Amino acid sequence: MKTMYMYFFIFAVSSNLIAQTIDLPPAQKSGGMPLMEALSKRASVRSFDTTAIPLQQLSDLLWASFGVNRPDGKRTAPSANNKQEIDLYVLLKTGAYLYDARAHALVLVTSEDLRATASEARFAEAPVQLIYVADLARRGSSDDGAMRMANMDCGYISQNTYLYCASVGMVTGARGTVNRDALAPKLKLKPEQRILLAHSIGQPKP
Amino acid sequence: MKTMYMYFFIFAVSSNLIAQTIDLPPAQKSGGMPLMEALSKRASVRSFDTTAIPLQQLSDLLWASFGVNRPDGKRTAPSANNKQEIDLYVLLKTGAYLYDARAHALVLVTSEDLRATASEARFAEAPVQLIYVADLARRGSSDDGAMRMANMDCGYISQNTYLYCASVGMVTGARGTVNRDALAPKLKLKPEQRILLAHSIGQPKP
Repeated sequence: MKTMYMYFFIFAVSSNLIAQTIDLPPAQKSGGMPLMEALSKRASVRSFDTTAIPLQQLSDLLWASFGVNRPDGKRTAPSANNKQEIDLYVLLKTGAYLYDARAHALVLVTSEDLRATASEARFAEAPVQLIYVADLARRGSSDDGAMRMANMDCGYISQNTYLYCASVGMVTGARGTVNRDALAPKLKLKPEQRILLAHSIGQPKP
Repeated sequence: MKTMYMYFFIFAVSSNLIAQTIDLPPAQKSGGMPLMEALSKRASVRSFDTTAIPLQQLSDLLWASFGVNRPDGKRTAPSANNKQEIDLYVLLKTGAYLYDARAHALVLVTSEDLRATASEARFAEAPVQLIYVADLARRGSSDDGAMRMANMDCGYISQNTYLYCASVGMVTGARGTVNRDALAPKLKLKPEQRILLAHSIGQPKP
């Protein structure tokens, strides 16, 4: 049982802090809370315990949110015309990573802790922050219609994040207020990549 | 067991077709497929068996999608600044209804079958069609920012619809192509009410 509680920062330190890619353990694609109970518990919470989360839970969280759930590369959330234009960036104490859903891996963007860059202190305390970024190049347009579709597609993924957290007793809250001007260059975003949303995620405050 | 299979149209006929409000049976707020399995099965399907669905399942579907899950009136899906601007309209053979989440009831809009008004034939075959309508008056604006928020809020609800269907072995697919010009007046929508999305829902084709 104890291995279940190996926390991510221990893994990160023991593996390699400057690794360009961290292979996630396979997500647990069965189990979890019965759906109707997870829906009963879904809520937005805006204060967090600072304890890191196990790597297995991070793996499950990312797969639940927007992982590949079929051999043809389709995902746990739909996207308009299957453009899959939303990327999840993962801000941890050990650095910022891009979630590569096909490889189910984290690709290092920077070893800087960007949690406090992204948000005010109470949200930065959470061990994990997910940043939802639309790559409008994949939509083939940056007009209002494309932005609306990207926002809808982001909502699907964010609901998965909520339900996964409810299912395992973690708390989270979606927020649109992100320090975009500071965060975008640190995440090396291109102009057509737009930060839509953030989720801080962690255990509830005792 | 047989009562579980009492179909909605039987209920509608036996109660009162011109009833202004149909009280739904309480939703089953526990049980359902384990979350990770529902996520594994989430997919968009675009052909449907024509068999009607039981009233209990319709109740559960609506509650899962955007029901009230807390005493303070908050819902199974979040909305920006808790504006709760998305309404679900329910198109059935017996008529079109507005889902009143607080009362967990269906309010009759028209006794006309609008399924084929909303969509092409293959989508109209499904026994249930949900229409997601944003009331921008509740957002206090109809500018691009309000439309983006409404689209994101719609995505949250639509993902709940997907997961509920996966959980009970029903199929569904979200689509943006709705015959808005024909449907909006039949649903008696005001100009600030915008049709964002539709889901046809039913059993899979054998």
